[in-house]
Amino acid sequence: MSTQHRLDSEDQLIRRIQRWTSGLRKPRSLHESIGDDAAVFEGRKGHLTLLSTDALVQGVHFDLRYTGPADLGWKALAVNLSDIAAMGGTARYFTTSICVPKTLPPDFLDAFYRGMARLAKQHQVHLVGGDTCASRRDLFIDVAITGEVKASELLTRSGARPGDWLFVSGELGGSAMGLELLRRRQTIPSRCRKLVRRHLRPEPRLQVGRYLARRRLASAMIDLSDGLSTDLHRLCQRSQVGALIESSQIPIPSILPKLLSKPVLSYALHGGEDYELLFAVPPQLGSRVPRRIFGIPVRRVGQITGQRGKVLLSAGNHAVLVASEGFDHFRKTGRGSSETAPLSL
Amino acid sequence: MSTQHRLDSEDQLIRRIQRWTSGLRKPRSLHESIGDDAAVFEGRKGHLTLLSTDALVQGVHFDLRYTGPADLGWKALAVNLSDIAAMGGTARYFTTSICVPKTLPPDFLDAFYRGMARLAKQHQVHLVGGDTCASRRDLFIDVAITGEVKASELLTRSGARPGDWLFVSGELGGSAMGLELLRRRQTIPSRCRKLVRRHLRPEPRLQVGRYLARRRLASAMIDLSDGLSTDLHRLCQRSQVGALIESSQIPIPSILPKLLSKPVLSYALHGGEDYELLFAVPPQLGSRVPRRIFGIPVRRVGQITGQRGKVLLSAGNHAVLVASEGFDHFRKTGRGSSETAPLSL
Repeated sequence: MSTQHRLDSEDQLIRRIQRWTSGLRKPRSLHESIGDDAAVFEGRKGHLTLLSTDALVQGVHFDLRYTGPADLGWKALAVNLSDIAAMGGTARYFTTSICVPKTLPPDFLDAFYRGMARLAKQHQVHLVGGDTCASRRDLFIDVAITGEVKASELLTRSGARPGDWLFVSGELGGSAMGLELLRRRQTIPSRCRKLVRRHLRPEPRLQVGRYLARRRLASAMIDLSDGLSTDLHRLCQRSQVGALIESSQIPIPSILPKLLSKPVLSYALHGGEDYELLFAVPPQLGSRVPRRIFGIPVRRVGQITGQRGKVLLSAGNHAVLVASEGFDHFRKTGRGSSETAPLSL
Repeated sequence: MSTQHRLDSEDQLIRRIQRWTSGLRKPRSLHESIGDDAAVFEGRKGHLTLLSTDALVQGVHFDLRYTGPADLGWKALAVNLSDIAAMGGTARYFTTSICVPKTLPPDFLDAFYRGMARLAKQHQVHLVGGDTCASRRDLFIDVAITGEVKASELLTRSGARPGDWLFVSGELGGSAMGLELLRRRQTIPSRCRKLVRRHLRPEPRLQVGRYLARRRLASAMIDLSDGLSTDLHRLCQRSQVGALIESSQIPIPSILPKLLSKPVLSYALHGGEDYELLFAVPPQLGSRVPRRIFGIPVRRVGQITGQRGKVLLSAGNHAVLVASEGFDHFRKTGRGSSETAPLSL
């Protein structure tokens, strides 16, 4: 199955949803709708409101054999905070729907909310409502989050232009490496604990996003939830551009290759769940991007090209086309980091 | 198990969630948080933003043997619109997370979104994002919705005062009666189709809510999602009052009693899922509440008393204490209208 087909499946769904809900005039106060990291509409004076939602489902997104309730509470909020970060916003309020099977111990919810509250406190984001109910078998969590950004500082996926420099925050592939170690269910070597933590307790890059937005350095941004290959394709599609990545520049955590089943580059390109930021910067501003933002390393990994929809990976003096092989729930075979093979619907 | 205990279980959860998330200073822009139909925070100039979320879980909230995908799309949005109605608001934007098992036919999502879009169009509310993913066995749906209301028109659960008149919109118990007929899986008599429709395609009362809010007639309001007995207890608790209901005044759909297993009053008091509005009106404004609002009958059913937390039902010349017997996911035995016995966590 070609990359194009895979991306199409999600795009087609979005197009279909847009068709079903068409016939409604788009209100003037709605700036961005389906297709970016968050919807954007008019908010407090001078501000835009951001709205996003992300679900976690047992057996699809997590496995309770090695994910504790506090990890899960943290992660359910983190993946949503990351969407606000990707728009250059500040997170404000969130709601949590959690549907809990009776097989879970009674203190599960306590630990879940404690893990969530710890991250909420760090980012000064407030739980303002939700729904807590029973489920028959699987645990299901959905978080909806609002954020705010000044209209002049909003970042979307669609502003990248040929010639822009491409940057990523942090390191890529660590979460997928951590997941592989967890799945093996052996004792985790102490030097690998950082990778496991990357998987269980991702750190949303809100400060990095705000830094770039405030200084208007970036032309487009997306968070890396489904892997560099998939998310870069998404950014390119929305911006109607292509990209060239320099493989030697991709920041990868140091790990003994024998601990892993695949080449490290594969985790970095296709692993997913890193929740780092990928952003484009106009060349005249490129040199103003610091090497670290609030302590998080920022690395130039390539540039935007005019070859619409094409993502190339250069290694030495040759370049290969990169397929989008991150996680997509709608393709038939999965190489993503999630627990079960994704479904074809 | 006493009523008090049942209500406490949900209240306790809310208190615990508030404790876990405490340590965060409540921002000035946050007006209402957990405990009302929606959270309320500062929005567009002169307006407040409302935010609410409600999940539907297969085997808990619905049964696919008699709930079609279009019904489900409609209902998932309707129950959320009802929360905005209860605050006197206008619905604006919503997101949908839907996690779909592979056992469902490929056109399930099409029909689901078509049913949802039909109701969205009626109320001019816009789908602006969401998450569509796989699940292993059960279908999960979560909707998060935003609305708007002028600060001076906001209605909450907490403004009722002793002496206020109590009103309900529409008829009560129809949804639970319809569910019982569906569950029996016999041919539905044609005169009962209306009840089945009440269950599968509830009509959120946004116009009624706006009418009351604009004219500032109501002192407190709640939507009837879990049954009159439960939701009236909630309104009384938040307003620190009690209530007296006149049983002969409760509007109940006409149905041959032999078609049902319980007395009709039981469905009206405890059935749940009617999504009508229950509201209190100061006595000096009571006569200004019309008998119909936008065609929906509005009936005075009782009054607010000073007996904090006590809900009495008067029938002829005696009155009985009404327990809260609507649906609560956290009590051990269920008499609510949902599909499975609720769980104790």
